[in-house]
Amino acid sequence: MKFGGTSVANLERIHNVARLVKEQVDKGDQVAVVVSAMSGETNRLVGLCEEAFELYDAQEYDTVVSTGEQVTVGLLAIVLKKMGLNARSWLGWQMPFVTSRHHSRAQIEEIDGSDIIAGFEQGQVAVCAGFQGVTPDSRISTLGRGGSDTSAVALAIAVQADQCDIYTDVDGVYTSDPRVVPRARKIDRISHEEMLELASLGAKVLQTRSVSLAARYDMPLRVLSSLESKPGTTVCKEEDIMETKVVSGVAFSRDEAKITLVDIPDRPGIASSIFNTLGAINVDMIVQSRTETDDTTDMTFTVSRADYSRALEQLNSASEEIGFQQIDSDNAVCKVSIVGTGMKSATGVAQTMFRELAAKGINVQVISTSEIKISVLIAEEYLELAVRCLHTAFGLDAEEAVAAE
Amino acid sequence: MKFGGTSVANLERIHNVARLVKEQVDKGDQVAVVVSAMSGETNRLVGLCEEAFELYDAQEYDTVVSTGEQVTVGLLAIVLKKMGLNARSWLGWQMPFVTSRHHSRAQIEEIDGSDIIAGFEQGQVAVCAGFQGVTPDSRISTLGRGGSDTSAVALAIAVQADQCDIYTDVDGVYTSDPRVVPRARKIDRISHEEMLELASLGAKVLQTRSVSLAARYDMPLRVLSSLESKPGTTVCKEEDIMETKVVSGVAFSRDEAKITLVDIPDRPGIASSIFNTLGAINVDMIVQSRTETDDTTDMTFTVSRADYSRALEQLNSASEEIGFQQIDSDNAVCKVSIVGTGMKSATGVAQTMFRELAAKGINVQVISTSEIKISVLIAEEYLELAVRCLHTAFGLDAEEAVAAE
Repeated sequence: MKFGGTSVANLERIHNVARLVKEQVDKGDQVAVVVSAMSGETNRLVGLCEEAFELYDAQEYDTVVSTGEQVTVGLLAIVLKKMGLNARSWLGWQMPFVTSRHHSRAQIEEIDGSDIIAGFEQGQVAVCAGFQGVTPDSRISTLGRGGSDTSAVALAIAVQADQCDIYTDVDGVYTSDPRVVPRARKIDRISHEEMLELASLGAKVLQTRSVSLAARYDMPLRVLSSLESKPGTTVCKEEDIMETKVVSGVAFSRDEAKITLVDIPDRPGIASSIFNTLGAINVDMIVQSRTETDDTTDMTFTVSRADYSRALEQLNSASEEIGFQQIDSDNAVCKVSIVGTGMKSATGVAQTMFRELAAKGINVQVISTSEIKISVLIAEEYLELAVRCLHTAFGLDAEEAVAAE
Repeated sequence: MKFGGTSVANLERIHNVARLVKEQVDKGDQVAVVVSAMSGETNRLVGLCEEAFELYDAQEYDTVVSTGEQVTVGLLAIVLKKMGLNARSWLGWQMPFVTSRHHSRAQIEEIDGSDIIAGFEQGQVAVCAGFQGVTPDSRISTLGRGGSDTSAVALAIAVQADQCDIYTDVDGVYTSDPRVVPRARKIDRISHEEMLELASLGAKVLQTRSVSLAARYDMPLRVLSSLESKPGTTVCKEEDIMETKVVSGVAFSRDEAKITLVDIPDRPGIASSIFNTLGAINVDMIVQSRTETDDTTDMTFTVSRADYSRALEQLNSASEEIGFQQIDSDNAVCKVSIVGTGMKSATGVAQTMFRELAAKGINVQVISTSEIKISVLIAEEYLELAVRCLHTAFGLDAEEAVAAE
């Protein structure tokens, strides 16, 4: 059972978490709980490090920010004991939860679940600090922001759990964001692959890294609300889903910016020299369009809005080397995607998508596809219209609109 | 170098601490720094535990409250690195600083200073978390409130330090509390034994336990201000003090309450049955006075004011068993003490003390003595008068009054 920052925001919420844990234990289950820092706490601690020195030492940063989860595990263990349960807290170094030495963005190397399992056999609930680990040289490490979901999945694998329940402030994964699509439906079951696409396309319910880890080890995940008792969404193997729709969800991202290099020489190695110029900046959708009349081509790609100005600067300073005539750019764009494992076998999905968008007068600027998703880049002003019409077109609409928050 | 909570209260103060550490390193010294939690932080964390459950689990309490020091060591290490020093933080479990399993009031068992010493040899400043340790079964422990002074002395012993400097918000140990005695003088050198008496008699500069540990291992202590550059007070072996006064200081405590059991049977074992009744309540001064005319006696003793009501209740409920006729009690009393190793050889010290008090019309209610101190219990209203007249009588007055705070 994993609980994020809003679920443990104060002692009242922590008591609520403890009640949910007790219900699970009362059913006869062996439970490990993974918790985040109380909401706001990690930001406070990061702020202290930045105030100390903007270029803070990452080892010391991890020592400081990991205290957020340390406080929560202690408090939750106290409350569980108050309720009569046998419980104890586990910090990253106590399990141990061994990670790489990449402080503040460590990779998990090995988790020893044996002490926790030994505790289970004595009826003990393990209250584990998310987000944190320990390096082979006994320094505290952290997995990076949002790492607690990943901690929970990794721990579930290490203790050979039957399932990993991610409690959050929403009651499951929806076919689209209910704030944009009032008729979005909660999905009962979804495959790891679909969830991975949805997560990486901007649905913020689960951290991409945690879904990818769950997929690799076939760990069933459940996303459910810590505040209301509802069944939530199960993320599982594709084979375990009886009936699938062609399209499971419509995702979108506003964090997009488009850059076009006009009239670049159409020669081998040109794409490589462009992306070398961009260095660490992540490039997402890419399309190359040849002008028929001469030897030049246009190259269009997208970057996140945070990288937009820097990308333009770096490209402009390399204009002679790359040899482009002009840069066109636009950060009033967004990405809309349809996702579904059913697309593997169904035909005509892309046609339906483009027809629906065309019917609303929405121009598609860039397209990218994978086996189970199609993404299009469009002008940002059309975002809501596009998402809603695709949601309807692929039969995802609920009979009634979701109640406004 | 040990810095308490007010010396690391915010990042500006932490920068000040870092400058003091750098000065010491620049002199060519190898330095381990011990720090407390930022002031107010331990109270906040204790408050969270109490809010979770008044009868909180002490192991989890230690997990929670030890985060205060963890944050400070990380921040100080970040600031020291910013100043160009080689520095790293050390948590209790990393050294390791092994303690007993008495959570929230653990006793130090063994400290391994070898990794810290290895760091010294590479020019590294060790930034160590005070107050916390680790039990043999790898749980976090704490030494109890004010334990950071003890941590510092223990660590100084473990790394074979030449001296242990306790930085605080006062500039040294005074002959008496300057708020009561404006002519109190700062003491340049004082013996461990005298400091121990002063600390346990209510002078709050150093924790008693830390002085006792320093005395046992002959570790020289220095008490000095983290805010102004002044020489402070050195606490050292008696032999290292060239010239000693008969009386080094006048201490006092308001935390006193007096209880007298009137007309108890004067038989063997009666004192034992009284103090058994009081159980865990700590009894300080004791005097027994026999009435000449019959077989009964009166027994007077003092307890702290926090224990006063509970002591009276417990005695009243055992009145038949003990067999007293009446209880007289008074919590408007205080204890005034003179301390000095010179009293071992000087004569007439007690006479001087009683004569001075009598001259001011102050009635002495109870007396207790050790080799190097004499304490008297008096009515609280006379406290300032008594302390000032003894300070003058034993030649401790400075030529000028201390500037008001």
